[in-house]
Amino acid sequence: RAPSGITGILERLDAGEVVIGDGGFVFALEKRGYVQAGPWTPEAAAEHPEAVRQLHREFLRAGANVMQTFTFYASDDKLENRGNKQRFTGQQINEAACDLAREVANEGDALVAGGVSQTPSYLSCKSEDEVKAIFMKQIEVFVKKNVDFLIAEYFEHVEEAEWAVQVLKTTGKPVAASLCIGPDGDLNRVSPGDCAVRLVNAGAHIVGINCHFDPETCLKTVKLMMEGVKKAGLKAHFMIQPLAYHTPDCGCQGFIDLPEFPFSLEPRILTRWDMQKYAREAYNAGIRYIGGCCGFEPYHTRALAEELAPERGFLPAGSEKHGNWGSSLALHTKPWVRARARRDYWETLKPASGRPMCPSMSTPDSWGVTKGHADLMQQKEATSQEQLKALFDKHSH
Amino acid sequence: RAPSGITGILERLDAGEVVIGDGGFVFALEKRGYVQAGPWTPEAAAEHPEAVRQLHREFLRAGANVMQTFTFYASDDKLENRGNKQRFTGQQINEAACDLAREVANEGDALVAGGVSQTPSYLSCKSEDEVKAIFMKQIEVFVKKNVDFLIAEYFEHVEEAEWAVQVLKTTGKPVAASLCIGPDGDLNRVSPGDCAVRLVNAGAHIVGINCHFDPETCLKTVKLMMEGVKKAGLKAHFMIQPLAYHTPDCGCQGFIDLPEFPFSLEPRILTRWDMQKYAREAYNAGIRYIGGCCGFEPYHTRALAEELAPERGFLPAGSEKHGNWGSSLALHTKPWVRARARRDYWETLKPASGRPMCPSMSTPDSWGVTKGHADLMQQKEATSQEQLKALFDKHSH
Amino acid sequence: RAPSGITGILERLDAGEVVIGDGGFVFALEKRGYVQAGPWTPEAAAEHPEAVRQLHREFLRAGANVMQTFTFYASDDKLENRGNKQRFTGQQINEAACDLAREVANEGDALVAGGVSQTPSYLSCKSEDEVKAIFMKQIEVFVKKNVDFLIAEYFEHVEEAEWAVQVLKTTGKPVAASLCIGPDGDLNRVSPGDCAVRLVNAGAHIVGINCHFDPETCLKTVKLMMEGVKKAGLKAHFMIQPLAYHTPDCGCQGFIDLPEFPFSLEPRILTRWDMQKYAREAYNAGIRYIGGCCGFEPYHTRALAEELAPERGFLPAGSEKHGNWGSSLALHTKPWVRARARRDYWETLKPASGRPMCPSMSTPDSWGVTKGHADLMQQKEATSQEQLKALFDKHSH
Amino acid sequence: RAPSGITGILERLDAGEVVIGDGGFVFALEKRGYVQAGPWTPEAAAEHPEAVRQLHREFLRAGANVMQTFTFYASDDKLENRGNKQRFTGQQINEAACDLAREVANEGDALVAGGVSQTPSYLSCKSEDEVKAIFMKQIEVFVKKNVDFLIAEYFEHVEEAEWAVQVLKTTGKPVAASLCIGPDGDLNRVSPGDCAVRLVNAGAHIVGINCHFDPETCLKTVKLMMEGVKKAGLKAHFMIQPLAYHTPDCGCQGFIDLPEFPFSLEPRILTRWDMQKYAREAYNAGIRYIGGCCGFEPYHTRALAEELAPERGFLPAGSEKHGNWGSSLALHTKPWVRARARRDYWETLKPASGRPMCPSMSTPDSWGVTKGHADLMQQKEATSQEQLKALFDKHSH
Repeated sequence: RAPSGITGILERLDAGEVVIGDGGFVFALEKRGYVQAGPWTPEAAAEHPEAVRQLHREFLRAGANVMQTFTFYASDDKLENRGNKQRFTGQQINEAACDLAREVANEGDALVAGGVSQTPSYLSCKSEDEVKAIFMKQIEVFVKKNVDFLIAEYFEHVEEAEWAVQVLKTTGKPVAASLCIGPDGDLNRVSPGDCAVRLVNAGAHIVGINCHFDPETCLKTVKLMMEGVKKAGLKAHFMIQPLAYHTPDCGCQGFIDLPEFPFSLEPRILTRWDMQKYAREAYNAGIRYIGGCCGFEPYHTRALAEELAPERGFLPAGSEKHGNWGSSLALHTKPWVRARARRDYWETLKPASGRPMCPSMSTPDSWGVTKGHADLMQQKEATSQEQLKALFDKHSH
Repeated sequence: RAPSGITGILERLDAGEVVIGDGGFVFALEKRGYVQAGPWTPEAAAEHPEAVRQLHREFLRAGANVMQTFTFYASDDKLENRGNKQRFTGQQINEAACDLAREVANEGDALVAGGVSQTPSYLSCKSEDEVKAIFMKQIEVFVKKNVDFLIAEYFEHVEEAEWAVQVLKTTGKPVAASLCIGPDGDLNRVSPGDCAVRLVNAGAHIVGINCHFDPETCLKTVKLMMEGVKKAGLKAHFMIQPLAYHTPDCGCQGFIDLPEFPFSLEPRILTRWDMQKYAREAYNAGIRYIGGCCGFEPYHTRALAEELAPERGFLPAGSEKHGNWGSSLALHTKPWVRARARRDYWETLKPASGRPMCPSMSTPDSWGVTKGHADLMQQKEATSQEQLKALFDKHSH
Repeated sequence: RAPSGITGILERLDAGEVVIGDGGFVFALEKRGYVQAGPWTPEAAAEHPEAVRQLHREFLRAGANVMQTFTFYASDDKLENRGNKQRFTGQQINEAACDLAREVANEGDALVAGGVSQTPSYLSCKSEDEVKAIFMKQIEVFVKKNVDFLIAEYFEHVEEAEWAVQVLKTTGKPVAASLCIGPDGDLNRVSPGDCAVRLVNAGAHIVGINCHFDPETCLKTVKLMMEGVKKAGLKAHFMIQPLAYHTPDCGCQGFIDLPEFPFSLEPRILTRWDMQKYAREAYNAGIRYIGGCCGFEPYHTRALAEELAPERGFLPAGSEKHGNWGSSLALHTKPWVRARARRDYWETLKPASGRPMCPSMSTPDSWGVTKGHADLMQQKEATSQEQLKALFDKHSH
Repeated sequence: RAPSGITGILERLDAGEVVIGDGGFVFALEKRGYVQAGPWTPEAAAEHPEAVRQLHREFLRAGANVMQTFTFYASDDKLENRGNKQRFTGQQINEAACDLAREVANEGDALVAGGVSQTPSYLSCKSEDEVKAIFMKQIEVFVKKNVDFLIAEYFEHVEEAEWAVQVLKTTGKPVAASLCIGPDGDLNRVSPGDCAVRLVNAGAHIVGINCHFDPETCLKTVKLMMEGVKKAGLKAHFMIQPLAYHTPDCGCQGFIDLPEFPFSLEPRILTRWDMQKYAREAYNAGIRYIGGCCGFEPYHTRALAEELAPERGFLPAGSEKHGNWGSSLALHTKPWVRARARRDYWETLKPASGRPMCPSMSTPDSWGVTKGHADLMQQKEATSQEQLKALFDKHSH
């Protein structure tokens, strides 16, 4: 059982239950005015708790079973790094985030997950001990606040994720680990299968993918992880928390390299119907922890819960205000709008962009590291990694 | 001066100040889980006040000077009409909406505007007296709660809007009137210029357009209104509150006829940069009450306030978390993302949809009432109006 | 009767027959290697007669009833103007073109039409007498070679077209006149209706539109011409010879202002099914001389003849190698290709561009003279016309 | 030396010369009215020699060094198979095609290549002997007419191509073999590398790819062939003759499965600038026999010859009517068109489709054999091959 007294994450997954994750807080709160794009740090947990609380509530209402503490990029090295005069310490932010998540989780059937993410310390080549010390500071808050389980998420290098898992394991709480990588593997080209095996061996109970790619791509990557774990004779649960943006044109570093990142991604936003498709495919693939990341708004999460309502046996609270497959349109004044109150209409519609001057795909920026140009990629890769390292060293971002 | 004690709407507009309107509540709250698409009624004001309050706060923080009471479609005939078992009376909903708007308006430099919108009674051909009685019930609440001014908005027929203005005028408060029509005029083909003249003659101090079309189209329509008013030798202030969706392919009934309405409009969502362009063009056209309608999220409103910061002399509170023209990206870890921290990058970017299987424009549904098919339109129109009337009578929607 | 002895153009049109025009020679021969883009002059008639003859044959085989002499831009001022060392005189080119058209016309049921087009002399403000003298030189060849009728085509200014008609009338042969303008009128903003009236009054038996715009736009323009002629109490036959390129994004000067002109128009090429739709709509509008201009290949013309086969009573010779609505696919080896052997498949297909990095519309170049920016257009127009004139004077193009 | 007395194909390739291939006759002649889509048989060589001769001349003028005999699908089993009452025997068609190719080749620096292609006999599982007998009948004509070399092209199964090569080898003439496969290999999933090795081992001097895919995809496939041959320690020359259609969305059977095949491919047609890019990339990859297939018009071939003019030392005859990179526009009347007379303008332009209602990519038809659905593909493949075989047996296509 979880510290909260309700059924714990592993008990649920062991029983084959579907666990619905919540959405991406930094993007949603940036649009609401509480997070700055670029730094993406979560000081709003302490500064504007009412806004964070409300977003937690909306995801809960949408059907989420997990309230992740709003502690993304809340490690001390990142917070300092941003150069903003801080009114709140890292500890204050992490504690406030835990309190908000717990307050709302208690209003429904949700668990609190304390989250850590990749650190500038690792990217600037600090030692394993130094990086682990960074994670330990956040973990201390999570233990003190008695979260239900822990997530190491948004790692581009499996090595750093392993270190995080090793730290999280010391708490004795269930541990999930998810990377922000695509089917080509982590930034050192460790394959998704190998990444998953290493994370399971490091002690993660749940492994998977979050962020950087759209559901279709993340699904492909998680499947590769599942194959890897199976081939290695290991066992694990799997999670998936993709973007709510279509990214068929991404390279290996995901949507960050798209020219539209982060301020013109609107035309790529998934519809609720795209979300239902994703939920079904994730479920069919055997993934049971199904959530979202950047771009997810509460209605996206609700779509996951509605699609999997037959399996879960109930609709989320938010469905009070939502007709299944558009059924609420049956009462619309215009007959041709009433005609849209049916599943096959929305399932087959190819929505127009209203932007005839715009293309449907972009060429990712970065140093020539583009999809479908594998050979170019191989030439450029070494250099690119070196250049990256040099830049990281120089700027300590 | 407004009842709230701060400078009133007419004083501001007379002084040439820019007034930033807030955004569209029904769409934003549908995505947050508190409004049902189809009925679009605002019972959440009474049911879930914390969600409505938070949205008000976000628009205030984004720079809005007006808090519209969340009373769209809150006329008794519409609320009953929806066939939902109501836990709250129309009066309760209207009162709760006034209280929330006032509470948040008092936290900043904002006025409260009581709003009425088109009624099923008019569409089903009830008498002028009956329709006016409907408006009067909402007005009574607005007077009791002492809102700062009144808006009659979202009218497809200028005649009904005139009736609304006549009722609103009885309060002695400033009156704004905005129609949801395009450059082709209202659903009886009264031209925008004639509509504006009729509304001014009915007593409206501010006239304009809201909803149904994108900023570019609404701008065109308001300009036609301005010309009409000028030609008639009248004077008025002008307002514009368009969609946050690109609708170059709309027919005369706007985005409702687009196949994507209302559940697959995502690819059409305007970026913050589209919004800055709109704000500038509206300002240049001489419009001073500049806001938004369906699709607007707080960051869209913030973009209006940021674009017009030079004219207003200050940035909105929410800009604390927003770098001008993407400047906050200057601190990003990846150099090619840092390179996006500049105005001309975002101003010239043509964002991709990530949807190569989708078109860029749609054919509006409805009965052949499509753009660029004027002759077809003329044949079909009479029938269509008759059919509509018949259907309205039959279904009492 | 025509000089050729077969039924003349006016007899056919008076009898209500459909006359199929041929296609655009300069674009087709540019792709075959015999015409230079930019100058677009027809010296190939003398230099490479086998290529011109073959193209005539293909259009004849496709169902064309008119062989236009390949004398586009074959006025002396244009030929000299190009600065190319000429191996052939203007007279030689015009005579060779007449001989080729006649040779092929005699192989089938086709008339020979001698054609003149707009001159650099007019654009550089030469006098009426000078311009008329230019036309007269070509006319002398047409009379000597005894063509069946005459066409003044591709005029951007109705005034010059009137002068051409007046010269052509002196021959006593039937005269057609077609302008390359859109619904906004000629470059001096004379409306299509007024243009048509002036051409009929100048003596043209057939008036209409060719080039610069797609079928949909040309159809709109010819309809305006028909209304103008009708309102003026006049009578005329009407012709239409549009581009084979989709140009929904054109401004008033047509496809020349599109950034893709003339070397990247490929994605805009009409399919044979687009052509059938166009032929049907032109027929339904009462137009009986239906042909094509730039971009037309023989199969486009065949599509016109096939669509109107029920009205004409026969299929063109080229249909020997073409199944109606794709019926020849019924014998394909792959069953899913066989399934395409039906009309509704091709009629409803929305063909993909295979170019996900490209937009679906462009912004025309020119000096701000873009569609949907009427106000901008009005500001810029005067200047633009002056600048144009200055440039024309200076460069004598 | 070739039978024609000019330098032979192998001498040219051994010397490192670029050999420009001609274009696809069946598609070009379908548009001109001489070939029927579906059957795609070349009886026009006998029926309409003037049309075939003219197309040969245009490709020669565009810079082609090879005149392929117009004998595609001219095997007796295919010609009979089509069920058309034949006025000409297979032998007559093959002989006429040889005569036309030789006549035009002698007008310039071109070789005649006799061509055979895949047979219905193979697809309906006839024996090796039976299939080889089919090829032998065409070969006899090629020997009698003394062509310069032989091409086995458009094979979907490497096994049949091997048989063809073995037959062609008996003549003692140079033999080229090209498959119409993509990077995934032939229809039995033999990889491109393995296919190439088998063809070289069968005796082909030149191996490569033609048809079914766009230049980018074909380039990828030929590179895989080159790697395979190299790894096997063998040597060969390489050829590439792709479509002139963009096909980024193709599955393993190429453009035939695209919904647009064959009658709505227009929006996919490559520009001349796309062609120059292709020619350069093919050259850089070490391919020296560079030509085209379906969709190629003479100007496409001219673009190859112009791009490689620095390497070849001369421009093709057709460049007489073509300015390098649009330079002929420098004389255009409109200044903004003159501004397009430069390389970087055309190289960077993203041409619009003028089709806002159409997508940029399609989903290939066929039985679920779609790109990016590898797992689905594996399930369906076996069935699909069986079903295909059954259908082929039944319908003897």
